[in-house]
Amino acid sequence: MSDTLDLARIDATLLQELMDKVSDFGSTGDGGVDRPALTDDHRAARDWFAGEMSARGYEVLVDDIGNLYGRIALAGPDAPLVMIGSHLDSQPRGGRFDGAYGVVAALAAVETWRRELAARGQAPGCNFVIVDWMNEEGARFQPSLLGSSVFAGGVSRDFALARTDREGRSVADELRRTGYMGADPAPQPDCYLEIHIEGDSKMEQAGARIAPFVRHWGALKLRIEVTGEQNHTGPTPMEDRHDAVLGAAHIIAKVRELADTAPDTLYTSVARVDISPNSPNIVPGKAVLFCELRAPEPEMLEWSEAELRAALPGLAQKAAVTAGIVSVDRRPAGKFDSRLVTLAEAAADAFGYPRMRLDTIGGHDAVAVNAILPAIVVAVPSVNGVIHRNDEYTSPEDLAAGGDVLVEMIRRIDTAKGSLDLAAEGA
Amino acid sequence: MSDTLDLARIDATLLQELMDKVSDFGSTGDGGVDRPALTDDHRAARDWFAGEMSARGYEVLVDDIGNLYGRIALAGPDAPLVMIGSHLDSQPRGGRFDGAYGVVAALAAVETWRRELAARGQAPGCNFVIVDWMNEEGARFQPSLLGSSVFAGGVSRDFALARTDREGRSVADELRRTGYMGADPAPQPDCYLEIHIEGDSKMEQAGARIAPFVRHWGALKLRIEVTGEQNHTGPTPMEDRHDAVLGAAHIIAKVRELADTAPDTLYTSVARVDISPNSPNIVPGKAVLFCELRAPEPEMLEWSEAELRAALPGLAQKAAVTAGIVSVDRRPAGKFDSRLVTLAEAAADAFGYPRMRLDTIGGHDAVAVNAILPAIVVAVPSVNGVIHRNDEYTSPEDLAAGGDVLVEMIRRIDTAKGSLDLAAEGA
Repeated sequence: MSDTLDLARIDATLLQELMDKVSDFGSTGDGGVDRPALTDDHRAARDWFAGEMSARGYEVLVDDIGNLYGRIALAGPDAPLVMIGSHLDSQPRGGRFDGAYGVVAALAAVETWRRELAARGQAPGCNFVIVDWMNEEGARFQPSLLGSSVFAGGVSRDFALARTDREGRSVADELRRTGYMGADPAPQPDCYLEIHIEGDSKMEQAGARIAPFVRHWGALKLRIEVTGEQNHTGPTPMEDRHDAVLGAAHIIAKVRELADTAPDTLYTSVARVDISPNSPNIVPGKAVLFCELRAPEPEMLEWSEAELRAALPGLAQKAAVTAGIVSVDRRPAGKFDSRLVTLAEAAADAFGYPRMRLDTIGGHDAVAVNAILPAIVVAVPSVNGVIHRNDEYTSPEDLAAGGDVLVEMIRRIDTAKGSLDLAAEGA
Repeated sequence: MSDTLDLARIDATLLQELMDKVSDFGSTGDGGVDRPALTDDHRAARDWFAGEMSARGYEVLVDDIGNLYGRIALAGPDAPLVMIGSHLDSQPRGGRFDGAYGVVAALAAVETWRRELAARGQAPGCNFVIVDWMNEEGARFQPSLLGSSVFAGGVSRDFALARTDREGRSVADELRRTGYMGADPAPQPDCYLEIHIEGDSKMEQAGARIAPFVRHWGALKLRIEVTGEQNHTGPTPMEDRHDAVLGAAHIIAKVRELADTAPDTLYTSVARVDISPNSPNIVPGKAVLFCELRAPEPEMLEWSEAELRAALPGLAQKAAVTAGIVSVDRRPAGKFDSRLVTLAEAAADAFGYPRMRLDTIGGHDAVAVNAILPAIVVAVPSVNGVIHRNDEYTSPEDLAAGGDVLVEMIRRIDTAKGSLDLAAEGA
């Protein structure tokens, strides 16, 4: 039996239907969605998706950090469990594919493979569980990857529940309010697959349609608090000012300078600044900077953190303020499961989809899960590399290509009764 | 009859009662108040103050930009009209004396003088109107001095009504909501007196208790919009980033540099920055900077504006973004009425209060009103020069001293039947 005859293509109609429908929740009317974690629109999307799973016979579960699961036991209670998914939350005014595509593609892929099993008369080798992780984006509640990190033990549940948004509402309160403070035990899968749109234009430039991620960059997420003194911008003599925003400006420029010193091996940003009181005629008394340092190698992260720490007092002094790092969230650099990389490449080749290997610099739930399970992210291109914006776009053809690869990976793992070694060898 | 016998001291008990009561509205519990224009707390303060005036026989008027007046006709319909007041709105988490002191002192001073007139059997020479200007602070709605500027014709009513806060609510809507969209014609006074706490520590350092303002500095209030491109802080290569906050940082540093180039004759600030979307892991696509340039001389303002305009393209280029000045609010430098300065000094001398002359750098309603009427601000010290903060503080003794001076100025103007020349000559 040739590979070509074995191939099953994703049910592209179902995939597109689900993709269209999920894009309605929090739609901004200009192609984007505004659906941060545990908002009303996010809840509505989750309620709808739980209904879609339930209607198809999946057992819907919610764990005690608000991760939503749909489990279907096809191969008996002792069979290996394959987890597939992503996240339904979005950035504020973000794009409609980031996360949501991975969740609906997971359901469409498992549904496709269920029908194929029946049509082929093939005995199922695995059970499946779809997952929608709570608060991947970290836009409303920091840090990001919160649900998957609690799942993988990297972050404690108590810590996660106590995170608050800008208005002071906690994850715990918002889970209760939206009905997603569950009590079900989290499923214990044997591997984790995630499909996601790419976050830059490398695939487009290379003409690739499929790209497994091989390494994930490490990240340091630092909160830097700058403390000055609140005063009137009119009468206060310049030499008596302690302007927290001026101090912040010096730090922001320095953070960029670090990246310029180490091109291609260090990415840096200060993307959020909370200024207090942020009134046009009051010298700001406080500014909190949300700074990120990202690198593929731990040594580079260490170097950049040390440089920043050493520079802070002098930068603050230039504005007659003080500055200190008040929290650090560390994400170590690492590698995804090499068998799953091979499997994704084989699946792409089976359909003749051009492929390449990539690192991921942004966080993904698979990075958190990879700490305890063989995991992988497979990327499809995003036009012009746009992500986290309303004009984020992946063509229906590329969405379907990613779905095809996911079905093929599922087929091979299922046929190998969950053995990744066998699945990858067969590839 | 000696000057000393003529003197009337302010009813310090009434002044303190009014000061204590007004401090309850929007109290932050730590000495400060949070009472930005047209909030519920501001409305409550105005409602209370209107009631205080009404109960004492003042005719309460509200004009069509929400300025609140209390008029009392003591000397017949053709007598000169003396206006006295300040503003009841505060900065967010501001102090309790800024503005409110001038409003309650105005009422306490006119009430004191009314009783003195009766006790002395002296015929009134003037009528009086107390005023609480709408939105002096400019914290919630920009620009500041909004009600007094419409009163003086410096700003059109339509423009003022269309100003919006961060949530997009307009002055017009909030005037209607709070019941302060009036229909009364604004009174037409012959002069304007305002008493206010000082905004720095010059008086304290000099040991002065009273200071008439002689000049008001000019100000340029610029909004600078920095436009970059919204992208993920993870995968977007550094060289492809167009980071609006990085561009903002370069501009903020430059704005301070301008002041350092011209010490003591140019004050500059960027005190508010609105960043979009201000999420920790999205390269910001936009930043709006609220910049102020203040100087006593028009030439310095022109120079600093030209320098900033010339520098903007290069500063933006350093961050691969664009930047442009989207609006400029110009407040020309000027002088207060010299007769009122003399009168304030004479009043201070009559009580033996140490005095000095000051310029005002911050805006005051009297600056706007000064364009069409003889006007003055008389300052009392603020401990450590603190203003716009919860620990802003002026002692009851200094509050009363300012009140004494106000009563004495009223006495001399009233006795001179509104002639500022005669009142100043007699001084």
